[in-house]
Amino acid sequence: VDKPTLADVARVAGVHPATASRALNPALVGRTSAATTARVLEVAQRLGYDPDPRAQSLRTRRSRTIGVVIPDLTNPVFPPIVRGIEDGLRDFGYESLLASTDNDFVREAAAFRVLQSRRCDGYIVASASRDDATVRQLCAQGVVTVLVNRLVDGLDTPAVISDDSTGMGSAVQHLAAAGHRQIAHIAGPLYVSVSSTRMAAFFEAVGALEVSPRPRPLVQEASDYTVDAGRAAMRKLLQREKVTAVVAANDLIAIGCYQALAEAGLDCPADVSVVGFNDMPLTAHLNPPLSTVAMPQHEMGRVAAGLVVEYIDHPDRAPRIEALPTEFIARASIRPVST
Amino acid sequence: VDKPTLADVARVAGVHPATASRALNPALVGRTSAATTARVLEVAQRLGYDPDPRAQSLRTRRSRTIGVVIPDLTNPVFPPIVRGIEDGLRDFGYESLLASTDNDFVREAAAFRVLQSRRCDGYIVASASRDDATVRQLCAQGVVTVLVNRLVDGLDTPAVISDDSTGMGSAVQHLAAAGHRQIAHIAGPLYVSVSSTRMAAFFEAVGALEVSPRPRPLVQEASDYTVDAGRAAMRKLLQREKVTAVVAANDLIAIGCYQALAEAGLDCPADVSVVGFNDMPLTAHLNPPLSTVAMPQHEMGRVAAGLVVEYIDHPDRAPRIEALPTEFIARASIRPVST
Repeated sequence: VDKPTLADVARVAGVHPATASRALNPALVGRTSAATTARVLEVAQRLGYDPDPRAQSLRTRRSRTIGVVIPDLTNPVFPPIVRGIEDGLRDFGYESLLASTDNDFVREAAAFRVLQSRRCDGYIVASASRDDATVRQLCAQGVVTVLVNRLVDGLDTPAVISDDSTGMGSAVQHLAAAGHRQIAHIAGPLYVSVSSTRMAAFFEAVGALEVSPRPRPLVQEASDYTVDAGRAAMRKLLQREKVTAVVAANDLIAIGCYQALAEAGLDCPADVSVVGFNDMPLTAHLNPPLSTVAMPQHEMGRVAAGLVVEYIDHPDRAPRIEALPTEFIARASIRPVST
Repeated sequence: VDKPTLADVARVAGVHPATASRALNPALVGRTSAATTARVLEVAQRLGYDPDPRAQSLRTRRSRTIGVVIPDLTNPVFPPIVRGIEDGLRDFGYESLLASTDNDFVREAAAFRVLQSRRCDGYIVASASRDDATVRQLCAQGVVTVLVNRLVDGLDTPAVISDDSTGMGSAVQHLAAAGHRQIAHIAGPLYVSVSSTRMAAFFEAVGALEVSPRPRPLVQEASDYTVDAGRAAMRKLLQREKVTAVVAANDLIAIGCYQALAEAGLDCPADVSVVGFNDMPLTAHLNPPLSTVAMPQHEMGRVAAGLVVEYIDHPDRAPRIEALPTEFIARASIRPVST
């Protein structure tokens, strides 16, 4: 039996071949009506139609596929970013292939090689460390690489980040206005740019407070952006300092702070107020509901998608970094103290 | 300048070419020491070594890549399953490429076409609907397809699911022993197999209770496995029935129940006890901590990885379904009532 052709599919579905072609092109989802797309897909599947993607790819000289690399799928902040990337890429007729690295540089290199063997047109990388050799190599080879959230020291490549300084400033001011004077920061691992950015913003925000007594900025580094690492860091902090409020570098670390406080017989918010960072999904439903600095996760993904397509089309354009606004959200994890 | 060869990389790294080859093969991560792997990768990157993956693929006649399709990355139960799949596949020297479908059959078909054009050796599908045309088509073409969690009606293909009946039985018995007689189930959307399985298990568990008065099983269907759909369904249920306990079809729907109860001026657990399903990450940190039926998410992913490799190696083996044990976990969202 001969393999069915595009013309066969179009004839059986009762549409023009050009319409059938659009309906069958993953890069063009939404360009034909849902009913037409469904009918053409149904006919194509029934007849066993198989377009030759390598031939398609040769014709267009692009795979219209972007490799997306994230550090840890089980960190709830990344799925909404990935969703934003997918939604944004679809609007431009691109698809995404996803790989996660578990924050391990050997796995990261392997993930890139798997994606590269699929001839991606560009990359969106949310997993970069400050000294990321793989990302540096990609950029050096002229491969379009857009960073999300995490930057590489001194590397000039397009990126989208959140404006953490403003959010951190609001959080620290809110705590100070509620009477807190012993305010600590549980920093993220400092090989990640966002950790040092947030820590620097904390120092700046505490230094700018016009209250008396002037608070001394207290910092403890967590070894990872996880609940367990947050708990360990908070435990260490409690051994050496008395604090009434903590700003954690992300929401998972903040949950670790909840745990360390409970283990130490302390109550949040009665004894210690806690603020997280990111406003990951379900943060409002935690016990107690977690105050946090929200970043526009879905929008960050969409902007990254726009940037990667822009720099594929205009490889000579000067790289730029887009910083999206953050917002401090006060919830029940903060309580005023008398000063 | 000539392109560097594998022999060049091995020479500069000071290792045998076979060792360099293993270190550079994404399928063999972990077969060389971390130090050696790191050194070889560093040298390969520095020299700009580029293996020809198409040639590699032709030599082995396999891509050693599995397409993984999930319905919704922002449902927190899927990332641990995906992590289990990735860990399991790596043990067998396979890599994964991930696509999500947003529970949309047009997007699902598009996702499969993108993955198929990358010549995957097989598929692991967590997104199947009961009448899934795309999955039926894959199986009809002899493509190895392993289902996770969600089955397709009447389709004979390998799968891994959780033993929901036992878990549902424990949950209902626990509620009855705590004095509850008005027990409702918020079912998931019934086009998904796991929804009907859990609903049937609920009917069976309530019917098997040896208490008096004998509870009448109450059911309300949620339109989706989301917080919003759970809230809407619980709102409807509260309009027509008085309940003292609810078992939701998953943890996100249970959070929706929390919201609907609060809107109705009811307290969980003082007025209504709530049980979820899955024990997704952070469930223990919700307000109140959510009782739930835990399924072994990471293990389900690992088993799925083992099955897909087994059926790639033995395509004629009869398909089997593995059911992994579930466990009821009681937390503060349940309170006894006087009978």
